[in-house]
Amino acid sequence: MLGTYIRKKNRLSPAQFMVLGFAIIILLGALFLNLPIASQNGESVGFINALFTSTSAVCVTGLVVVDTGTHWTVFGKTIIIILIQVGGLGFMSMATLFSILIGKKICLHQRLLIQEALNQYDLSGLVRLTRHILVGTFIIEGIGAIILSMVFIPKMGFLKGLGYGVFHAISAFCNAGFDLMGNFSSLTSYTENIVVNIVIMALIILGGLGFTVIFDIIKKRNFSKLTLHSKIVIFMTSFLILIGFILFFAIEYDNPKTLGNLSFKGKIIASMFQSVTTRTAGFNTIDLAAMKDSSKFLTIILMFIGGSPASTAGGIKTATLGVLILAVIAFIKGKEDVEAFGRRISYSVVNKSLGVVAIGLSIVVFVVMSLSLTEVKFDFLDTLFEAVSAFGTVGLSLAGTPNLSLIGRILIALSMFAGRVGALTILFALSNRKQKNLVRYPEDKVIVG
Amino acid sequence: MLGTYIRKKNRLSPAQFMVLGFAIIILLGALFLNLPIASQNGESVGFINALFTSTSAVCVTGLVVVDTGTHWTVFGKTIIIILIQVGGLGFMSMATLFSILIGKKICLHQRLLIQEALNQYDLSGLVRLTRHILVGTFIIEGIGAIILSMVFIPKMGFLKGLGYGVFHAISAFCNAGFDLMGNFSSLTSYTENIVVNIVIMALIILGGLGFTVIFDIIKKRNFSKLTLHSKIVIFMTSFLILIGFILFFAIEYDNPKTLGNLSFKGKIIASMFQSVTTRTAGFNTIDLAAMKDSSKFLTIILMFIGGSPASTAGGIKTATLGVLILAVIAFIKGKEDVEAFGRRISYSVVNKSLGVVAIGLSIVVFVVMSLSLTEVKFDFLDTLFEAVSAFGTVGLSLAGTPNLSLIGRILIALSMFAGRVGALTILFALSNRKQKNLVRYPEDKVIVG
Ligand SMILES: [K+]
Ligand SMILES: [K+]
Repeated sequence: MLGTYIRKKNRLSPAQFMVLGFAIIILLGALFLNLPIASQNGESVGFINALFTSTSAVCVTGLVVVDTGTHWTVFGKTIIIILIQVGGLGFMSMATLFSILIGKKICLHQRLLIQEALNQYDLSGLVRLTRHILVGTFIIEGIGAIILSMVFIPKMGFLKGLGYGVFHAISAFCNAGFDLMGNFSSLTSYTENIVVNIVIMALIILGGLGFTVIFDIIKKRNFSKLTLHSKIVIFMTSFLILIGFILFFAIEYDNPKTLGNLSFKGKIIASMFQSVTTRTAGFNTIDLAAMKDSSKFLTIILMFIGGSPASTAGGIKTATLGVLILAVIAFIKGKEDVEAFGRRISYSVVNKSLGVVAIGLSIVVFVVMSLSLTEVKFDFLDTLFEAVSAFGTVGLSLAGTPNLSLIGRILIALSMFAGRVGALTILFALSNRKQKNLVRYPEDKVIVG
Repeated sequence: MLGTYIRKKNRLSPAQFMVLGFAIIILLGALFLNLPIASQNGESVGFINALFTSTSAVCVTGLVVVDTGTHWTVFGKTIIIILIQVGGLGFMSMATLFSILIGKKICLHQRLLIQEALNQYDLSGLVRLTRHILVGTFIIEGIGAIILSMVFIPKMGFLKGLGYGVFHAISAFCNAGFDLMGNFSSLTSYTENIVVNIVIMALIILGGLGFTVIFDIIKKRNFSKLTLHSKIVIFMTSFLILIGFILFFAIEYDNPKTLGNLSFKGKIIASMFQSVTTRTAGFNTIDLAAMKDSSKFLTIILMFIGGSPASTAGGIKTATLGVLILAVIAFIKGKEDVEAFGRRISYSVVNKSLGVVAIGLSIVVFVVMSLSLTEVKFDFLDTLFEAVSAFGTVGLSLAGTPNLSLIGRILIALSMFAGRVGALTILFALSNRKQKNLVRYPEDKVIVG
């Protein structure tokens, strides 16, 4: 199917196919959300707002211009959670498929084009993998939904509690960050609730690792036997969670508006949760706007890094940062080869990581410079925060996304799309377009630094 | 002399030698500036402030905690300009020597250590090069001083006018950004003065290119014959000046507090001057604090980039950014080799550029996170601005450096030192410590992006 699509040269490339696919889903979602029956007040939310919400849902970002819990009807909420599931799962499975295909072929024949790879690959393998991803998603989300429902049902009654359990389980696993708690409060009423915290964190981490790594762990059950990719992803994820936890804990410890008035256990849970959720999920259990500037800056850095490749996460990705750190370590040690866990990483992967970061930074710089012209009332830190949150499909906000101007809303919607689909396009469209260098130029020196 | 120093294994490495040398000069400067005769009020400025000023002068940064023009006596001003000249010239000539030595040997024997390189190099060549740098500096600064004096003498009388001409010519060529105009006003009273603007801009650009490039231009007189390094540096410098000019002009065009009330010609001159001075010199002819956030953010980016390697400039350097951009272009084009102007750039240079940026970013992130804890009254944008200004040895400030707390002053002084000498240390200490990889590991894939 996909193979046939690609074989014809004049048809869409896989990258174009995906970008268009996502755009169509977003538009469809916007049309549904624009209906009066989607809003509790019985009036259409307005097309730009519907489009913004649909983009945010499909790109699993979680930035919202109207409060999800109080504005939308059950119909609207259902549309949103479907968009999240389709966006999150669609992206993750496509990315997993492609990365496995690319990976398989890249090692054997460095210069093979992705189109050829797709045609040569056994189609039944693709179907099996997709089925595994679907089954895996429903098992993980199902367990999450059951546990969350057990917390919500006693408070809200059976149907609503179950709905809330399912909604938040999907939203957490897809790293979407949408919540139904009302008044943009996210999970601030569950700051010290251990069950909710642990379940949501587990869902976020699993979704943020992606199935490439999850399946690898299930198959090998032994860290030393994992692929290099899984090792780097797991190492970076643990490292980033730990660093974020320590810094949030230390910086906010005495801030009465965030951690200050919590118990010691509460402080630990809340900073751990914030560390996990910040990189891409976008829930929050403490008042982010009340954090110190130092924590806000830390949040911005974590949001930019994001989760792992081929997952529901956004950002430049843990593995990308990992490869760049390894390259810097190689440089500091004066080594020619970039190495990790007894394996060598090729320069083309380092170059690609560099490209991903450069493109990410360019997007953020462009959006920040534009937003600081259009949103003159926003504090600079809030503007930077909003732009990185959109690019990293995180969904946290300091200034309040509903306060954005019309141009601001469009810019942020485009950033979410670019942050989500752009990374994908780059991955698919560029990774394997290896050109043979017809002429190899003589090497010459450049003084840097 | 230097050779003997290095031959003995237990002696200091060239990098340690330089760091120590700069530290001693800074301390000496601080002792002089701490004297009561250095201050116009006849009282010592206080050791921390003297140390801050001396660090700022030797590191050619220009951040000041007391106003240079009104606080210091002629004795104090003389000490400052001597520190600037010694710091700027000392750094530039050492860096040029080392980079030429490194360059010569790197191409022939990739694995040769810098120590051996130094011993094998003809000492008379070193002496000749140093003489050329000294002569070149005095010719360029002399011409600048004469023209500037012709502007200042009619206003201030012969002696003072001449002194101001010499001071600002040295300060501009060394990219130091110190001025004597009083009340932290920098060159804001010369916004539309064509002569002052052109002379200062020419001095800044020449100082920021460095003698590696200046001598190459004088020798070849033909762009196509220049070394790859010179081509990249000239291209990036022109590109950055142009981009900065266009953006400042466009963003501030209608801002009544900056360009708004100037003539069209004045708008052009002022935005051109701001573009040239921002990357490392640190003068200003418009009120920076009155700029829009968008321009402030642009300023931060330009300050981080800085001038060219082996010059008086700070920042990560134009050539470093150039190499990374070329690497990204190679990735986007799907090419294995990083190429420019018909030459290939080795992966080790790309890795080094990556290392320089990573270390620079780490310093800035650390300082910003610390400063936003110690300077709670500072706006985040002002904090970020101050930290990058110190790291890039630029010397521009929004919040006013004198408002920094004691810890803030120490942090900023350390950033200036790290931004200036740290880059140097990295260059010398790490560039040639090539280790043979005893084991070459098998290549393995990592999915990034
Ligand atoms: K999210
Ligand atoms: K400077």
